[in-house]
Amino acid sequence: MIKVAVIGATGYTGVELLRLLVSHPEAELCVVCSRSAAGSRVADYFPSLRGYIDLEFVTPDSILVKECDVVFFATPNAVAMHQAQVLLQAGCKVIDLSADFRLKDAEEWAQWYGEKHACPDLLAQSVYGLPELNREKLKDADLVANPGCYPTAIQLGFLPLIENQLVRPESLIADAKSGVSGAGRKANMASQFCETADSFKAYSVDGHRHLPEIKQSLQTLSTEKLELVFVPHLTPMIRGIHATLYATLKDTSVDLQSLYSERYKDESFVDVMPEGVTPDTSSVRGSNHCRLACFRPQQGNTVIVLAVEDNLVKGAAGQAIQNMNIMFRLNETTGLSAAAIYP
Amino acid sequence: MIKVAVIGATGYTGVELLRLLVSHPEAELCVVCSRSAAGSRVADYFPSLRGYIDLEFVTPDSILVKECDVVFFATPNAVAMHQAQVLLQAGCKVIDLSADFRLKDAEEWAQWYGEKHACPDLLAQSVYGLPELNREKLKDADLVANPGCYPTAIQLGFLPLIENQLVRPESLIADAKSGVSGAGRKANMASQFCETADSFKAYSVDGHRHLPEIKQSLQTLSTEKLELVFVPHLTPMIRGIHATLYATLKDTSVDLQSLYSERYKDESFVDVMPEGVTPDTSSVRGSNHCRLACFRPQQGNTVIVLAVEDNLVKGAAGQAIQNMNIMFRLNETTGLSAAAIYP
Amino acid sequence: MIKVAVIGATGYTGVELLRLLVSHPEAELCVVCSRSAAGSRVADYFPSLRGYIDLEFVTPDSILVKECDVVFFATPNAVAMHQAQVLLQAGCKVIDLSADFRLKDAEEWAQWYGEKHACPDLLAQSVYGLPELNREKLKDADLVANPGCYPTAIQLGFLPLIENQLVRPESLIADAKSGVSGAGRKANMASQFCETADSFKAYSVDGHRHLPEIKQSLQTLSTEKLELVFVPHLTPMIRGIHATLYATLKDTSVDLQSLYSERYKDESFVDVMPEGVTPDTSSVRGSNHCRLACFRPQQGNTVIVLAVEDNLVKGAAGQAIQNMNIMFRLNETTGLSAAAIYP
Amino acid sequence: MIKVAVIGATGYTGVELLRLLVSHPEAELCVVCSRSAAGSRVADYFPSLRGYIDLEFVTPDSILVKECDVVFFATPNAVAMHQAQVLLQAGCKVIDLSADFRLKDAEEWAQWYGEKHACPDLLAQSVYGLPELNREKLKDADLVANPGCYPTAIQLGFLPLIENQLVRPESLIADAKSGVSGAGRKANMASQFCETADSFKAYSVDGHRHLPEIKQSLQTLSTEKLELVFVPHLTPMIRGIHATLYATLKDTSVDLQSLYSERYKDESFVDVMPEGVTPDTSSVRGSNHCRLACFRPQQGNTVIVLAVEDNLVKGAAGQAIQNMNIMFRLNETTGLSAAAIYP
Repeated sequence: MIKVAVIGATGYTGVELLRLLVSHPEAELCVVCSRSAAGSRVADYFPSLRGYIDLEFVTPDSILVKECDVVFFATPNAVAMHQAQVLLQAGCKVIDLSADFRLKDAEEWAQWYGEKHACPDLLAQSVYGLPELNREKLKDADLVANPGCYPTAIQLGFLPLIENQLVRPESLIADAKSGVSGAGRKANMASQFCETADSFKAYSVDGHRHLPEIKQSLQTLSTEKLELVFVPHLTPMIRGIHATLYATLKDTSVDLQSLYSERYKDESFVDVMPEGVTPDTSSVRGSNHCRLACFRPQQGNTVIVLAVEDNLVKGAAGQAIQNMNIMFRLNETTGLSAAAIYP
Repeated sequence: MIKVAVIGATGYTGVELLRLLVSHPEAELCVVCSRSAAGSRVADYFPSLRGYIDLEFVTPDSILVKECDVVFFATPNAVAMHQAQVLLQAGCKVIDLSADFRLKDAEEWAQWYGEKHACPDLLAQSVYGLPELNREKLKDADLVANPGCYPTAIQLGFLPLIENQLVRPESLIADAKSGVSGAGRKANMASQFCETADSFKAYSVDGHRHLPEIKQSLQTLSTEKLELVFVPHLTPMIRGIHATLYATLKDTSVDLQSLYSERYKDESFVDVMPEGVTPDTSSVRGSNHCRLACFRPQQGNTVIVLAVEDNLVKGAAGQAIQNMNIMFRLNETTGLSAAAIYP
Repeated sequence: MIKVAVIGATGYTGVELLRLLVSHPEAELCVVCSRSAAGSRVADYFPSLRGYIDLEFVTPDSILVKECDVVFFATPNAVAMHQAQVLLQAGCKVIDLSADFRLKDAEEWAQWYGEKHACPDLLAQSVYGLPELNREKLKDADLVANPGCYPTAIQLGFLPLIENQLVRPESLIADAKSGVSGAGRKANMASQFCETADSFKAYSVDGHRHLPEIKQSLQTLSTEKLELVFVPHLTPMIRGIHATLYATLKDTSVDLQSLYSERYKDESFVDVMPEGVTPDTSSVRGSNHCRLACFRPQQGNTVIVLAVEDNLVKGAAGQAIQNMNIMFRLNETTGLSAAAIYP
Repeated sequence: MIKVAVIGATGYTGVELLRLLVSHPEAELCVVCSRSAAGSRVADYFPSLRGYIDLEFVTPDSILVKECDVVFFATPNAVAMHQAQVLLQAGCKVIDLSADFRLKDAEEWAQWYGEKHACPDLLAQSVYGLPELNREKLKDADLVANPGCYPTAIQLGFLPLIENQLVRPESLIADAKSGVSGAGRKANMASQFCETADSFKAYSVDGHRHLPEIKQSLQTLSTEKLELVFVPHLTPMIRGIHATLYATLKDTSVDLQSLYSERYKDESFVDVMPEGVTPDTSSVRGSNHCRLACFRPQQGNTVIVLAVEDNLVKGAAGQAIQNMNIMFRLNETTGLSAAAIYP
């Protein structure tokens, strides 16, 4: 059994890790950390886990953390970068679900996150945890930067086009819509029920922190300089991301349906919908799947790709466990085989 | 492996059975029936099951049904009663999630369901599938009448009080609130998004079909003639039932918390909350648990019991599988061990 | 034109007052106060009011407040009681939408609100602002205690029964369900979208602050000592209260439909539904109406009354304006005549 | 008083017309038509209108219709085209909220709507009812084709760019999100609560019927051949449209904020947000406003315009009344002055 610690377990990403880990047949949840909740029983904090977990929250300084085989950080940004080094030296593998190790350039990180990076040396070592792109590197990774929720859907949607240099590099647009859980579990006005229910809005139009991560990753696949416009929106649903991607095809003769089916035919968690069928986010609620569909309306030269995922699963905790499975040479679907909850 | 057929699989109860059965380690989903969808691939009909099920819908007349060990009816009322006899004679066990075999009195059934019962002889044979009440009988049952969603929550909430004759028999009130999936998967105006979202209403105040079922079952536990007022309400959520139960205590010295904890201490799926804590329906979303809490406000003689469940799981498909597990002498939690999806 | 000030205008009750007042033909909104938002433009704070209001928030100490004819307090509890005296002395009429002047007994107030009352002398002078009960007194009132949201629906539902001594005094139960806006506009965890959406829960089962207010008011109508059990619930909708009221009839021969129709036949804002029809909260969304329906299921001795209102309108801001209309001898429906927004 | 008939009043657009018309000071609602509901009282059908309207539905053949000054069609597509001619000859003005008179080319209409147009002769005579574009023509119009909900938001968003030839004609993308009421009031599976709540999806990606209407109208403003990609999405909210528009600027030196402010400075119902502020759909719930914001992220050459409206008001019934006001030389805001309902 893989001994597991989760740091920052009082957030939505954290509790989703707990939900998935308590059912994982090869993982043993040993340490659950939270500074704010230390001393409380986890199951009192999260009644959905009553009967599943008999631990108390401890502080992340606990000696127990280092005895684990893998440590997940589900903390706010700029926390993991202060603690990862010590854990790596103690022999733990580290999977960071925050943004601390996603960008390779420490200065770019500082620009977007508003402070100096605490351990720039680790940036080169970290592996970006998108299995569909980096599976081989992940097998030997000690430090994994788990992708953001938007970046997962957007990259999976764009990958086949970019890898094959099929679209004009300056034409990429990602119009993405997220459920409110993407804003995290904290008491802020903007995600109060009455502010978000029965309403819809764009935000961070001038630049969202997930933008550089997406560009950095896609750029590695392209010989041309990519431009990407990314507009995130807040949707009155709990879970789910729907990315609507636009790009201009260089050549309209490409068979998009075959391209996507072929690219992902061996992927357990990427599902290309039949031609003409649009995916609902509810079709992936609670599951680790990303479902894709592609269109070329009016036989024009604009390709539209739709990508849906559960932002807390494939967009966060599920993908983190998928990465753990890869790192520990388990079957990639272990502990992630539940079907989506519909309705 | 238990060979399983599901009849009426295009409804919400049906697709929930499919979701749970595809992950059940001891069950093999062999036949999925629907007259209206016959010929379609199940996974095309329910994209949430893409990758999990490779069957087509067949009609319920299919010869394949009889070859199964157990047949679940997730059909509208007044369907199973026409087909159960033949299946039982063929050696299948039958678990009916509709109301056809819940009432023991065929005339009462006819009054509430508006037509003559098609096989009154089976009513005596059928076992009411509330494991917390009838576990022993269920072990040898061939025909199980799976309880309704409201009745499950309401009975689990009232059981300790009624079994111990602790409350005045004429004082029972069940104010119950259901998510919209309780109305079934059909194109009716009343459950359109714009009719139900951001709104709340009572319905069937003059008498809901679940009333006689609850009274019949509770009455078997009481030496006094019970009266029950039951008001169902429609709540703008997908899944979940919250029952708020009221009764007048004969004697206020009873320790309610101990009473409930003791009654359910060996039950895997009934969870008594710590004193003073109220359960959310979201704490059981997708799981087979019913969570209970009891209160006696202002030290008066009114006891209040709160009961939450997922109407599609413990209130329908999950309980049906729990019954199957009992009937086939499996561990009762087999295939039902997933934690609730929160948030 | 009546010169109006609103204090505490950054809450949901406050902004609802602003919405209604900008369209009120006899009122002029002169001063809008908020300590936290002082200096901001109201229309920047609430974009829904862009084009309707060209004021900045000022602090409630502003000299301008005293120059108004009427001052609305939409502040948290325990604020108005510190400021009302001075305003009354300056000749302003005061309508307090918080709880400060609702209870007549300063000690009882202190018990429920956790601090000493700051101006107990005003308690006797204040008039409880339920027009359907106290219309005559309100005409000459200078200080009005606007009822709470739950108390408005519950009292309007119970009034005909209690006034006529028709039910057993110890049998009153109010099972009430509120939209999330009832929790106010503040950044708390419990009313985050992901905590409340697609979920349902009871709260304050042991005793909610609206209980003494309801009992105090209803008791004045009864010759017998009343007992009331009140359980509030949180519903995943923005606006709306649905109260389901239960009581035991002393005599089942009463014609409930006539009783209710007759009692409210001259009321502009209380609407008794046709026999057998249950009201949705969406039928009063944004309007000042309370709709009622009464039932006696299975011809038993339990009467059930359903009452729906918009908690921010008839349950708060609308009723406050109705009170202002009465105090200033306007037509009671002035500025309150808009129909509900459906869907 | 303008005598008004509404045909097809049982839909969401119809009941919204009723809601607005009962408060309109210069209009008298005389005839309310519905074949399916003929004989029912309108207020029984729509409880939100209890107390506001004392009419019964009649069939649209009623002689009373012709006696009105103006007739609104809130019917499904392909109904008004069979009845408009007779009404126009009888001297009624006609405002059609369906699509029957929006396209100028009868063959194009037939392609998109699947049947032959019944009165192609009227197409030239009809005026497209977007006041911000066609105000002068509307003053003398007898037959108005009220724009679709998506087209209103999308055109108002693109107008300043297209009128000034500021963007590359082949670069237009409209990613639009609608509340569920846009699907109309009918019992279809796709808009059941459980199918749409807590979920998000694109639809009609291959071509939505509003596409030709938008292109036809925008093309009249451009000297270049425009291309438009339009992807509609279904959002779990009742009302509201959010259009996110993308286009490539020919010249990035344009001052977008001034452009938009200037274009709409005299418009009562188009509101340009302050720079950097994104509008919520909830800020226009129930009101006739369209709020716009424009962005140029990372100082690139892509302009992003956000447009929000209430699809049933500015996107349908409100705009229809605005057109009526123009046709009858009333102040354009008459009966449309209520502020949005927030929260």
